[in-house]
Amino acid sequence: MSFNTFGHVFRMTTWGESHGPAIGATLDGCPPGIALSETDIQPWLDRRRPGQNRMMTQRREPDAVRILSGVFEGRTTGTPIQLFIENTDQRSKDYGEIAHAFRPGHADLTYHLKYGLRDYRGGGRSSARETASRVAAGGVARRVLAELLPDLRITGYMVRMGEKVIDRARFDMAEITRNPFWCPDPQAAAEWADYLDFIRGRDHNSVGAVVEVVASGVPAGLGAPLYGKLDADLAAAMMSINAVKGVEIGAGMAAAELTGRDNADEITGTQDGQPVFASNHAGGILGGISSGQDVVVRFAVKPTSSILSPRRSIREDGTALDLKTKGRHDPCVGIRAVPVGEAMMALVLADHLLLDRAQTGGVRGRIGEG
Amino acid sequence: MSFNTFGHVFRMTTWGESHGPAIGATLDGCPPGIALSETDIQPWLDRRRPGQNRMMTQRREPDAVRILSGVFEGRTTGTPIQLFIENTDQRSKDYGEIAHAFRPGHADLTYHLKYGLRDYRGGGRSSARETASRVAAGGVARRVLAELLPDLRITGYMVRMGEKVIDRARFDMAEITRNPFWCPDPQAAAEWADYLDFIRGRDHNSVGAVVEVVASGVPAGLGAPLYGKLDADLAAAMMSINAVKGVEIGAGMAAAELTGRDNADEITGTQDGQPVFASNHAGGILGGISSGQDVVVRFAVKPTSSILSPRRSIREDGTALDLKTKGRHDPCVGIRAVPVGEAMMALVLADHLLLDRAQTGGVRGRIGEG
Amino acid sequence: MSFNTFGHVFRMTTWGESHGPAIGATLDGCPPGIALSETDIQPWLDRRRPGQNRMMTQRREPDAVRILSGVFEGRTTGTPIQLFIENTDQRSKDYGEIAHAFRPGHADLTYHLKYGLRDYRGGGRSSARETASRVAAGGVARRVLAELLPDLRITGYMVRMGEKVIDRARFDMAEITRNPFWCPDPQAAAEWADYLDFIRGRDHNSVGAVVEVVASGVPAGLGAPLYGKLDADLAAAMMSINAVKGVEIGAGMAAAELTGRDNADEITGTQDGQPVFASNHAGGILGGISSGQDVVVRFAVKPTSSILSPRRSIREDGTALDLKTKGRHDPCVGIRAVPVGEAMMALVLADHLLLDRAQTGGVRGRIGEG
Amino acid sequence: MSFNTFGHVFRMTTWGESHGPAIGATLDGCPPGIALSETDIQPWLDRRRPGQNRMMTQRREPDAVRILSGVFEGRTTGTPIQLFIENTDQRSKDYGEIAHAFRPGHADLTYHLKYGLRDYRGGGRSSARETASRVAAGGVARRVLAELLPDLRITGYMVRMGEKVIDRARFDMAEITRNPFWCPDPQAAAEWADYLDFIRGRDHNSVGAVVEVVASGVPAGLGAPLYGKLDADLAAAMMSINAVKGVEIGAGMAAAELTGRDNADEITGTQDGQPVFASNHAGGILGGISSGQDVVVRFAVKPTSSILSPRRSIREDGTALDLKTKGRHDPCVGIRAVPVGEAMMALVLADHLLLDRAQTGGVRGRIGEG
Repeated sequence: MSFNTFGHVFRMTTWGESHGPAIGATLDGCPPGIALSETDIQPWLDRRRPGQNRMMTQRREPDAVRILSGVFEGRTTGTPIQLFIENTDQRSKDYGEIAHAFRPGHADLTYHLKYGLRDYRGGGRSSARETASRVAAGGVARRVLAELLPDLRITGYMVRMGEKVIDRARFDMAEITRNPFWCPDPQAAAEWADYLDFIRGRDHNSVGAVVEVVASGVPAGLGAPLYGKLDADLAAAMMSINAVKGVEIGAGMAAAELTGRDNADEITGTQDGQPVFASNHAGGILGGISSGQDVVVRFAVKPTSSILSPRRSIREDGTALDLKTKGRHDPCVGIRAVPVGEAMMALVLADHLLLDRAQTGGVRGRIGEG
Repeated sequence: MSFNTFGHVFRMTTWGESHGPAIGATLDGCPPGIALSETDIQPWLDRRRPGQNRMMTQRREPDAVRILSGVFEGRTTGTPIQLFIENTDQRSKDYGEIAHAFRPGHADLTYHLKYGLRDYRGGGRSSARETASRVAAGGVARRVLAELLPDLRITGYMVRMGEKVIDRARFDMAEITRNPFWCPDPQAAAEWADYLDFIRGRDHNSVGAVVEVVASGVPAGLGAPLYGKLDADLAAAMMSINAVKGVEIGAGMAAAELTGRDNADEITGTQDGQPVFASNHAGGILGGISSGQDVVVRFAVKPTSSILSPRRSIREDGTALDLKTKGRHDPCVGIRAVPVGEAMMALVLADHLLLDRAQTGGVRGRIGEG
Repeated sequence: MSFNTFGHVFRMTTWGESHGPAIGATLDGCPPGIALSETDIQPWLDRRRPGQNRMMTQRREPDAVRILSGVFEGRTTGTPIQLFIENTDQRSKDYGEIAHAFRPGHADLTYHLKYGLRDYRGGGRSSARETASRVAAGGVARRVLAELLPDLRITGYMVRMGEKVIDRARFDMAEITRNPFWCPDPQAAAEWADYLDFIRGRDHNSVGAVVEVVASGVPAGLGAPLYGKLDADLAAAMMSINAVKGVEIGAGMAAAELTGRDNADEITGTQDGQPVFASNHAGGILGGISSGQDVVVRFAVKPTSSILSPRRSIREDGTALDLKTKGRHDPCVGIRAVPVGEAMMALVLADHLLLDRAQTGGVRGRIGEG
Repeated sequence: MSFNTFGHVFRMTTWGESHGPAIGATLDGCPPGIALSETDIQPWLDRRRPGQNRMMTQRREPDAVRILSGVFEGRTTGTPIQLFIENTDQRSKDYGEIAHAFRPGHADLTYHLKYGLRDYRGGGRSSARETASRVAAGGVARRVLAELLPDLRITGYMVRMGEKVIDRARFDMAEITRNPFWCPDPQAAAEWADYLDFIRGRDHNSVGAVVEVVASGVPAGLGAPLYGKLDADLAAAMMSINAVKGVEIGAGMAAAELTGRDNADEITGTQDGQPVFASNHAGGILGGISSGQDVVVRFAVKPTSSILSPRRSIREDGTALDLKTKGRHDPCVGIRAVPVGEAMMALVLADHLLLDRAQTGGVRGRIGEG
């Protein structure tokens, strides 16, 4: 994990700015012989694409991905895969005022302080646009996982928008793709629609969200003590997404409120040489290594700092101003973080799957055997 | 971050098991010419040492650190520093039953499933004993930071024990070292003492905690987009500590409940070429790069799974048992996580300080200047 | 150095195949604020470009580089720089026979054995075409070095073609760019022209070469013991170039023939706090760290395995054949390796310059001072 | 490969100075379940040990290795293995004059110039003593290879001492361990004995050497384009050994003198799905990937710069002196480089074996099959 590269042996390097000619990701270390074409990747990008409804930025990008290398006659060759996405709808004139002023709560400021200059057009490198590269790379990771772990399922959804949370009693997996919020609770989805209309349209505001990503079918044994832990890598993966301010595994922050007796996930027996558990406070990870239970990650996305309401700030020259951000922004950027969180989960799992077979050969201990 | 190595250019590799002859850390990339001796490191280890009072495991380890390399005539030479700590009080007979059974919620199980075998004595590599190596390495990082960032202060403390939280209105920095809980609220500290006595002595239980670590005096510009973000590395650092299940930066998970107007940390002016803020929801990090505000990290430590109350589990051969963990365990392992969290903060900041000067030469943009 | 990434903190990741739509390099960790445009890079690519004279493959590629990211208003921003080169002259029909047979001495075979499949068109990823990406990246490294080490000069040239060597008594720096062989000896250059005409035209053969790359103006102190040595990284850098089979520093293999008395580079005094040497058998590197003398690297390039003379080989199905390689190939691929060697030298030096300032802050010990 | 760490997934970090209390190596990423004890490692150390005969430094070190972690009940656990070697025979008084003067051709100088200070006792970190750590780590790598590649054999020997070379017509594998020079030619060995007596005893000098290391039984498919090539990693590995100035693969530098027709290793058929070759100019590596032939590496070791003959040099204060190095030094340090070269070969092969199974799962393409 070095600046713009993520992963140990299945490595993604992303590049590109919001208003440059293109963005992309280079995937290195992909197993050879995996069937792969643009049509495997495009659907994931389409899920994340901006401009699809009024809940999102109105920037319209086709986000058409092209594979420029690493695939021959429909199969991966083991050499680096370049995923290439042209930028087509850069409306740079929108960014006049913030060219030389800083949005409070935005990377505008810290890029300037670190580098002494910044590409202010659309946030440059700090734009959520970069997450398209992640989603494309995640599409390749999913193909790898589909070959090596056919039972794996990765599902992301929103469990909170601002003050409003889902009712887990109404959790319905099938609902997730039926509303623009990836919300598994249809009643919450309806409320969120009204709420977000108010936030955006009347309040000229934005709002935060909590996203949960669950991977089921993860075999026991992925991850490694102590600094290559599966949960440490997931935490870094999710925290690296724009606007994320907190990451939880399983019970997460609430684990602090539990006693050891309540938090222990009792083991009630074995099935096919693997343990069976009575609960999953651990979120599928013990000592940094997957246990075979669902891997459960949650992360908080802060409200975007680009809002139409004025906030006090300064210009590069130090003078004060009240700043309103015009332009096309997501009132709840957490919505688009759902496919991104899924992609990061896929990337981490693919990386750890390969890393594990480096060390152990993929052979695992079992219960009730020699 | 590769298995047992942490950091980019200031790198720590730890080794050793709970009941082996010794544990230690190798620090690579330390700047040369830094004054360093065991007496700079030992006080930090003493703060974390087990067996100091009834709130902790009764294992008694002097945790005397020796510097075996990388220092000559009292100064670092730029070559690897080996920090060496002998284990002296291994009471392996305590671990009879769990030699072949798995504590629910413990890495016992996943080590077995991944590696096919494990050093069951005291948890082996998964023991919190490894954190002594981190604290020792953190002591070196603090010396580096003292030279390069003399105004930096790192302070860790507990803000929650189980159901009980501090009252921030009573926050008193001076209290932190006056009670065995690193608790900045003296009234809470008194309550926690009774609470923990009950949890441990009568309830045969354990309890979780939330630790907060604050670094003040961090210059703007540390961190790098997009996978070497300061917050992503802090998240990995804290999540890599035993028993941690959630990590927050600034407002953390609560950022999801805020609107953009409330979450924005308004900028009210400049001082010495740096911005002045009205609040710090961001926890001192924007776009993965420090802003000059306090860097604020919080993490949740789950209750230890080693408790005297019986829990359902299985043996390696698959047979069921009700497992009670005898031996010497911390009823609230979060207490000892405070110095560990501080050490990880020091290690991350030292690493990012060096990494930043690699790329930028340590020259920073300023406000109100060319 | 992980599969397709090279470097520690100034990192290059290359991607692309000979007959894919494009090739390129992502440069990560570049210092911000460096003036950079395509016109800084293109001249280096033009030096390496195929099809310039009869001594080279007749494939004609404009090798026009585009910067797709990381530069804003003519200066680097500190974010990843994507260097993009379209492939325009792929004549895939040339590769009919070798689609399913292996050229002896070529990566055809080992790619098949490792990955189970390969992009046979033009050698795919193993083609020397990839070196255009290196040369482009080297152009960026040279811009960084021009800012940080204005006195640095990197010069590559050929000292051997097959059996024929230069006479160092006739060494003339100005000659290097006056002949198609980067040969510093004008008489040798004339002989090589005839020799290569024979090798290619009449003998249907190819021939090896030795390239020397010298960097003058390298400050003392770059490199680090023991596995990040400057010479170890240079050796890996040069050995990673297609067809290279040997790498030497300074006296190189001949150092084995010397005695300690003869090999010692005596120090005759100091100038500006730096030592002055009587000779440079060490090639400017002692203990893996630059001494301030010229850094001298030499590498051997084997003759290309793609020749018009028949050689015994096998097909993928195991049947035997006598294989002649039609198509457009360099009779002495060492010629084009000269700009590539220079580029790798620039990349290694830029990386180590940044790495050194990470650890030491770029402050160096001097002679005759405190 | 980052300062003091070597390897991708099977990683060695060494630490320690010549005259510190101990030296050692941490091995991370070792497969679990490998039988391992000190008795597997000690014999390799004994081969390299100083003070065994008059051809070596007279420093007497038992070089007794202890395994401090990562092994439980005689098998590796998958956690880091600490190999610990105490220094017992430090005679620091020997180093009086060179405490503040620089041996010409020695790292004394560059450590001072880079770090501003150095541990001058016995060369500190730059001492060949560090290679004991490599040899110990190589012993673990050999155990891994013995399990995973039982047919692998690694053999190192000297082919040149100064002006004197072996006659390959007299090559006898059995001779290698019968003389103190690891010389496969008994007649050369006898000559070298006299030669070295003269060099050391009468000439007060030292002499260089060429070491060759051959690995047979390496499966096809190890290595990866383009910056993780097997030959690039071997080149870095060997160049990282003290005093090495050149590295060759197969025909090496001499490949430059060959034509393509002569250099091509013709493929004459297949056996068990693998190709059969008529020659091995490639040294078992094509395109950075092993071909199944013997992997052949050669490296040149310069004569040690610590000699009893006076050489011109300077002191730290810039004053001139004629420097003679008293103390106990190897007249031909290449001799002790033989076991070190073998160890580095073992480490590189183990690392690449694991790295390959990460990406490909260890499944290889074959000839004559689907």
